Amino acid sequence: MNDQRISFSKLVNTLENILLKYGVASEKAKKCAFLFAKTDLDGVRSHGINRFPLFLEFIRKGIVDPTAEPRQESSFGVFERWDGQGGPGNLNASFAMERAIANSEIFGIGCVALKNTNHWMRGGNFGWQAVDSGKIGICFTNTKPNMPAWGGSQPKLGNNPLIIAIPRKSGPVVLDMAMSQFAYGKLANYARAGKNAPFAAGFNQDGILTQEPQTIIENELALPAGMWKGAGLSLVLDMLAAVLSGGDSTHEVNKAGAETRLSQVFISMDPIKLQLDDWLNEKCDDIIQDLKSSRVFEGKQVLYPGENVMITRQENLEMGIPVDGSIWNQILKELEK
Amino acid sequence: MNDQRISFSKLVNTLENILLKYGVASEKAKKCAFLFAKTDLDGVRSHGINRFPLFLEFIRKGIVDPTAEPRQESSFGVFERWDGQGGPGNLNASFAMERAIANSEIFGIGCVALKNTNHWMRGGNFGWQAVDSGKIGICFTNTKPNMPAWGGSQPKLGNNPLIIAIPRKSGPVVLDMAMSQFAYGKLANYARAGKNAPFAAGFNQDGILTQEPQTIIENELALPAGMWKGAGLSLVLDMLAAVLSGGDSTHEVNKAGAETRLSQVFISMDPIKLQLDDWLNEKCDDIIQDLKSSRVFEGKQVLYPGENVMITRQENLEMGIPVDGSIWNQILKELEK
Repeated sequence: MNDQRISFSKLVNTLENILLKYGVASEKAKKCAFLFAKTDLDGVRSHGINRFPLFLEFIRKGIVDPTAEPRQESSFGVFERWDGQGGPGNLNASFAMERAIANSEIFGIGCVALKNTNHWMRGGNFGWQAVDSGKIGICFTNTKPNMPAWGGSQPKLGNNPLIIAIPRKSGPVVLDMAMSQFAYGKLANYARAGKNAPFAAGFNQDGILTQEPQTIIENELALPAGMWKGAGLSLVLDMLAAVLSGGDSTHEVNKAGAETRLSQVFISMDPIKLQLDDWLNEKCDDIIQDLKSSRVFEGKQVLYPGENVMITRQENLEMGIPVDGSIWNQILKELEK
Repeated sequence: MNDQRISFSKLVNTLENILLKYGVASEKAKKCAFLFAKTDLDGVRSHGINRFPLFLEFIRKGIVDPTAEPRQESSFGVFERWDGQGGPGNLNASFAMERAIANSEIFGIGCVALKNTNHWMRGGNFGWQAVDSGKIGICFTNTKPNMPAWGGSQPKLGNNPLIIAIPRKSGPVVLDMAMSQFAYGKLANYARAGKNAPFAAGFNQDGILTQEPQTIIENELALPAGMWKGAGLSLVLDMLAAVLSGGDSTHEVNKAGAETRLSQVFISMDPIKLQLDDWLNEKCDDIIQDLKSSRVFEGKQVLYPGENVMITRQENLEMGIPVDGSIWNQILKELEK
């Protein structure tokens, strides 16, 4: 990899200018660019600007409609359903979490189900959105089928990322986990480096667990995290997303050959409205302090979910965001078109 | 094991009569006995009557107060907080899910956080309670510390069971998963049989993954399901339970030497109130049908969460519930006291 470091503002401005050329309206282009850039700022390089070229391709192909607005389908105060109308996934998701946050300030809890949306890129962004507003945030999405059910020999489940975010003054706790033990992107990295995954990562064609990335990628048989447990959790998250939104489920996604028409759920809880703020911060501090006091195995350390993000973000703000040179050149060419 | 089969009604009546002797009021004794017996009826033998003797011991020791009533701490319509006041864990949990169900019928969603309660025994019971009322049910509890954090060499996390239940006419989907890859009870069974666990189940004292049950039990180093992923999920579930209820977190549980003062959360969503009932059943059927159509590895089959329960329940209703002879004798002796 040939990395260079780009400042956050330059990254946002560059992406924003390209999105304007692609017909995204001004305020939306700024927001969409911000979400892509923030993903790299936070060190989640698998879901940031390296997906930007594909995102533009989805706009060109008409899979993502850059002008689409979410449309409300129903509202029951605490619960709303929205149709994403095929708009940009990160904008739709950010909008849905904003609605959940606003409703939680009125009712204590807000839940928004969103159908017919596109890939939200980094789900953690919407967890951070909640904690940055002082809220507890939970969200999940379905995906195309990319993991086998337990016992199954073909991809039937999605890796359906789940985000649970809890505000804390000295560092929010933001869990952002997909249901596969390793992302396919990570497996591809291992394969390119000629390495095995550090733990069992999927199945070979005989249903035996393997650490060999190429075999897993070819068979599309990534291991559900926790084996039968992650497989079960993936299934019920897909069911909840499809049932609550009235949208498509994992087995319907990708039928047209592209990962689109996704279903998602966004939940916010307002600690102030629910009068939890007397103890929230102290309890969270106590729990994290106890966790960090753990004895560790030699050479290991214990981190809480999101802890690395805070460290990386600070470093990247000071030194610039590492960007793969070939991706950056690809993006700059879009400006010249 | 020396099993005999006991009818469901005989099992309930026997447990009920013992509970009456232990000072549990009539209606509550019936309910508590029903929940214990239903657990065995559904085939979850690890969390049913084989825990009944320990439950009685907890009453004798004053850890479980058989006369305690849950007390409401606050209410915001969609969200309520209750103090379990050290009452029987399965009764408190059933009460809390009932409140969540009732509120979901008014507001669409009901969420009840419960502090200062005792072990709920089988969490799946409260998922079934929700789907039996036609509701989507989600609940989770914290536990004493019994798993290491990722990188850690001592138990710091609870195995914090999570239940997600979705109603379906031809068979509800009820996921009931603890955050450890294998339960300690299951590891003890492997150890007694002189067998290894079928997959990595924990760590040895050098932090290396092992399938050897005795080593794991001695070190209290059960593997989080999905490794760092289950460890992260366990942490945030404990944080949510403690923060929402204002109760104790995993690191505080067990400080007095017994697993008590637990924190739990119960969520119900009413598909009728939320107008999801037009498509809920059809969507769930489609998803399960697609799952069950999966190609499988030789000798394997694909089951959805809860599918085994329905099969076992039917068999046990017809043939009687398998009960370990020594446990049954222990229970019958309580009747003679």
